[in-house]
Amino acid sequence: MKASRFLVSTLKEAPSDAEITSHRLMTRAGMIKRLAGGIYNYMPMGLRVIRRIENIIREEMNRAGAIELLMPVVQPAELWVESGRWEQYGPELLRIKDRHGRDFILQPTSEEVITDIARQEIRSYRQMPKNFYHIQTKFRDERRPRFGVMRGREFTMKDAYSFDRDRESALRSYQAMFDAYCRVFDRMGLVYRPVAADTGAIGGSASHEFQVIADTGEDAIAWCPDSGYAANVELAEALPLIESRAAAAQPLEKVATPGKERCEDVAELLGLPLDRTVKSIVLAVDRHEPVKDGKEDLGGKPRIVATEIWLLLVRGDHDLNEVKAGKVEGLAGFRFATAAEIAEHFGCEPGYLGPIGTAKPVRLVADRTVANMSDFVCGANDVGFHYTGANWDRDLLPALAERGEQLLVADIRNVVEGDPSPDGKGRLVIQRGIEVGHVFYLGTKYSSALNAAFIDDDGKSKLMEMGCYGIGVTRLLGAAIEQNHDERGIVWPRGIAPFEVVICPLGYAKSAAVREAADALYAELLEAGVDVLLDDRDERPGVMFADWELIGVPVRVTVGERGLKEGQVEVLRRRGMEMEAVAVGEAGAAVRGVLAGC
Amino acid sequence: MKASRFLVSTLKEAPSDAEITSHRLMTRAGMIKRLAGGIYNYMPMGLRVIRRIENIIREEMNRAGAIELLMPVVQPAELWVESGRWEQYGPELLRIKDRHGRDFILQPTSEEVITDIARQEIRSYRQMPKNFYHIQTKFRDERRPRFGVMRGREFTMKDAYSFDRDRESALRSYQAMFDAYCRVFDRMGLVYRPVAADTGAIGGSASHEFQVIADTGEDAIAWCPDSGYAANVELAEALPLIESRAAAAQPLEKVATPGKERCEDVAELLGLPLDRTVKSIVLAVDRHEPVKDGKEDLGGKPRIVATEIWLLLVRGDHDLNEVKAGKVEGLAGFRFATAAEIAEHFGCEPGYLGPIGTAKPVRLVADRTVANMSDFVCGANDVGFHYTGANWDRDLLPALAERGEQLLVADIRNVVEGDPSPDGKGRLVIQRGIEVGHVFYLGTKYSSALNAAFIDDDGKSKLMEMGCYGIGVTRLLGAAIEQNHDERGIVWPRGIAPFEVVICPLGYAKSAAVREAADALYAELLEAGVDVLLDDRDERPGVMFADWELIGVPVRVTVGERGLKEGQVEVLRRRGMEMEAVAVGEAGAAVRGVLAGC
Repeated sequence: MKASRFLVSTLKEAPSDAEITSHRLMTRAGMIKRLAGGIYNYMPMGLRVIRRIENIIREEMNRAGAIELLMPVVQPAELWVESGRWEQYGPELLRIKDRHGRDFILQPTSEEVITDIARQEIRSYRQMPKNFYHIQTKFRDERRPRFGVMRGREFTMKDAYSFDRDRESALRSYQAMFDAYCRVFDRMGLVYRPVAADTGAIGGSASHEFQVIADTGEDAIAWCPDSGYAANVELAEALPLIESRAAAAQPLEKVATPGKERCEDVAELLGLPLDRTVKSIVLAVDRHEPVKDGKEDLGGKPRIVATEIWLLLVRGDHDLNEVKAGKVEGLAGFRFATAAEIAEHFGCEPGYLGPIGTAKPVRLVADRTVANMSDFVCGANDVGFHYTGANWDRDLLPALAERGEQLLVADIRNVVEGDPSPDGKGRLVIQRGIEVGHVFYLGTKYSSALNAAFIDDDGKSKLMEMGCYGIGVTRLLGAAIEQNHDERGIVWPRGIAPFEVVICPLGYAKSAAVREAADALYAELLEAGVDVLLDDRDERPGVMFADWELIGVPVRVTVGERGLKEGQVEVLRRRGMEMEAVAVGEAGAAVRGVLAGC
Repeated sequence: MKASRFLVSTLKEAPSDAEITSHRLMTRAGMIKRLAGGIYNYMPMGLRVIRRIENIIREEMNRAGAIELLMPVVQPAELWVESGRWEQYGPELLRIKDRHGRDFILQPTSEEVITDIARQEIRSYRQMPKNFYHIQTKFRDERRPRFGVMRGREFTMKDAYSFDRDRESALRSYQAMFDAYCRVFDRMGLVYRPVAADTGAIGGSASHEFQVIADTGEDAIAWCPDSGYAANVELAEALPLIESRAAAAQPLEKVATPGKERCEDVAELLGLPLDRTVKSIVLAVDRHEPVKDGKEDLGGKPRIVATEIWLLLVRGDHDLNEVKAGKVEGLAGFRFATAAEIAEHFGCEPGYLGPIGTAKPVRLVADRTVANMSDFVCGANDVGFHYTGANWDRDLLPALAERGEQLLVADIRNVVEGDPSPDGKGRLVIQRGIEVGHVFYLGTKYSSALNAAFIDDDGKSKLMEMGCYGIGVTRLLGAAIEQNHDERGIVWPRGIAPFEVVICPLGYAKSAAVREAADALYAELLEAGVDVLLDDRDERPGVMFADWELIGVPVRVTVGERGLKEGQVEVLRRRGMEMEAVAVGEAGAAVRGVLAGC
């Protein structure tokens, strides 16, 4: 490619709404151009990267036996009503009406459509396993799209869906996709980690996220370097940090802590370490009247008939993990309690709440570590006061027993750096990651909703076992840049660079020697199958160099009169900005050598 | 590819809504699957054809110097308001609202967005010519989607847009695209014709359609085999069939023609040839009150202040061409007159209308041929009566002259088979075609609306000259099939076939000899770069043969025990169903030989 036949379009300044590095660099490098909030034009330079990403994905999907098809962007509401997601999905699902007033959606994923295809196409166990994928435009109407392509509204995703006759086979399909994803991200030259993940709203029972490691990632990952254990912090199990409860050594004392609402402040005031304090979090769970005839009244929400108030306790230096809290029996669908509910049940304002002597009985959940603490500090349910020397056996359990209740102990906190790995083989490190892929074992969630059944070898009709597998194609663009950049710009891994090599002739129009040497090298590299761009724009050297350092092409060759006089050209490796002078005649081989190491 | 790793899914019956051959065959061959009206899943077999089509287009666009990018499916209304199309476009433009109530559209084309990009990117004449294209999902909310992918709602289109500094350069860009389109359709193995076309609603002043010739096409094409002239019938010029007006030879006579409302019936009753009769068509043109301040009241339509009634005359054996009629001065925006308007101006019902003695004056337009007729038959504006022996000079022009009017003579009819070619070099043939591509010279229609200007070499700001160029990717699937099928199914041209060769082993599971021979041939063809499928499904021969004849793979190789005993396999050329037995050892070479002729 010659630059004169392409669009090289860089900007000195990033747009003001670009909050993160990748968004700034992609925009400045002319890879994307904003059209509307969360909606981008993929400019020629950016599209080349996308196509490389897509090709790697396609090759690895095909290699793993997945079959490509293409499902529409606009999908009829009926299938989404059938699966229940028409109602369950929030406003991120863009619902539209056609000219006849019929309901459609812009697809955020395609579980419904592929299950509809499978229930028509697959009739016998002999036709499975089958895995279908497509690479298609998706739409999620994010309330606040941000971070460029990382959380856009229109984006490209590869989604695959496997269909198997039983769980065992489905888990083999899952593993095949897991392995394919590793190959995909390896080939892209990314540092990533597959981590155990929560199955969330899509459901199912096994799930891994593929996280590109980057400080700016939205996700926190718990990783054990000794054992290789890795999980999203949402899921990573927190072991109790105290093995067993010690006997009470202190009396329960109510101490004045005026204006000290945070554990940190209380600990400082009392001269105690933070890990002697306990944090109180009040949740509420609304119970609704039973749904009649198995159908919800879609015109409104079911009526609330009762609300339970729960108090959750985590150690002062720990944070509540809401995903884990939602899995505690009775806490599904919880919300944070209102100020009025707190006042009614605790007779106190937040900041001084605690488990001892609440105004009304509340359900109590202690984190595993809290359950083994003794002589701890907690709020006294009296504004400006905390208790010290609180102890379970003496101060809490008797009141519970009186009400006929037992203390619920559960893992409800986030793991923190230094926690023991749940596999018992070392200590956890916390890293930030960007989720670029996700594999789910779905079981029969969709096949049962849409009645996707087949005849098994015993002649019986059974539901297909499904898995779904996504890769965020356009998000990968951003994730790769978050991981691969320096102060000059992007540093593309070779596998997904827009071009592998750029030739920068100094004085292409003026100097016949420069032009001939540049053209010859260009022809030689093209011939050798290298994806090379010749920058024939005849810009000043400073402009050319800054452009290509910003755009991040892995190898740059500078051809100038001064060097040619000594029979040399300069070869620069973008990562590390290592420059070497090589003989003109060996330039092609030298470039390929440097490229091989990129 | 092995069939066991793919989805071969054929149907015996076509769906009841499939009206045309391509829709029936594509559905039966498992290439598409309906999801909603005009919205299809592209199944694995169909997607392979689409990818081949896309790759040919991409290669030829790149070769012609066009630059690929990707513009979004969901586009903000603002740009469409700016161009005026938000108001002008009918309900085919799907208008949607996001969660914040902001207006968006699903793109049917991308003139607005690319012009917005160009006005940001192109500042100097030095940056032009530039041509950008994308291959992207489009949506047109057709009132009655039909004919499968031929007139769907969601479809894939390649659209390119050129930007030039002046008209001369723009016409070179236009020609480059015209030539690229010829290469695209040549490589696809299609019989097509570029035809001069009307510029319609998109505007501009030069336009060609690329029509795939097929009896089922929606378009009529006038073509002159002697000169190569070709134009859409909408546009093709109709020369006068009579050179000059003869003097009146008959008196004007009012004759009874009860119940004879059509020219054909009147001619039969009177024992005259049809080309002695003249057909009357009544049109109306509403004049609106002037728009204030250059802005339309978008809440309603401007008020009608006057309506003109026009009478158009074409020979009895000719048809009115509405596109041409709309170009007659004063007839822009015409509609057909209502029964009340006809009664008021003619004092008569349709069927007996004519130019002589209307109840009220009407504007008169004669087709070029009608203007030179003499002694002709026309309605007498009296139910049950026609005139014979009507003559312009005696019976019509004096009345016109009295009102101070002149007869308007214009080309307002469709050309018919046998008409002289407008280039004077032969006679026209009428063919049916399917429009698969369209090139438009747009001029400054969009660049003026969106103010896409650049600085020319004289230092002045000028508007960019634009062209737009579309190819209907998914429609090509249907068009190719309409042109290439027989009673057994599809007959793919090699360039866009889903597979080039299929190997059908008879008894793949049972016979080691068959399996070994089939596997060896498969490996040999793969090695040679042939896109081959091995049908290892172990279906009965009849099922396999019927499947592949329906799907239309160009070359089939049958490997059976009986043939192998004589050292032979059978090679079948799908087009023409020509079969030959070849020696096993020469099968690879024989297949490639047959393929080269496909």
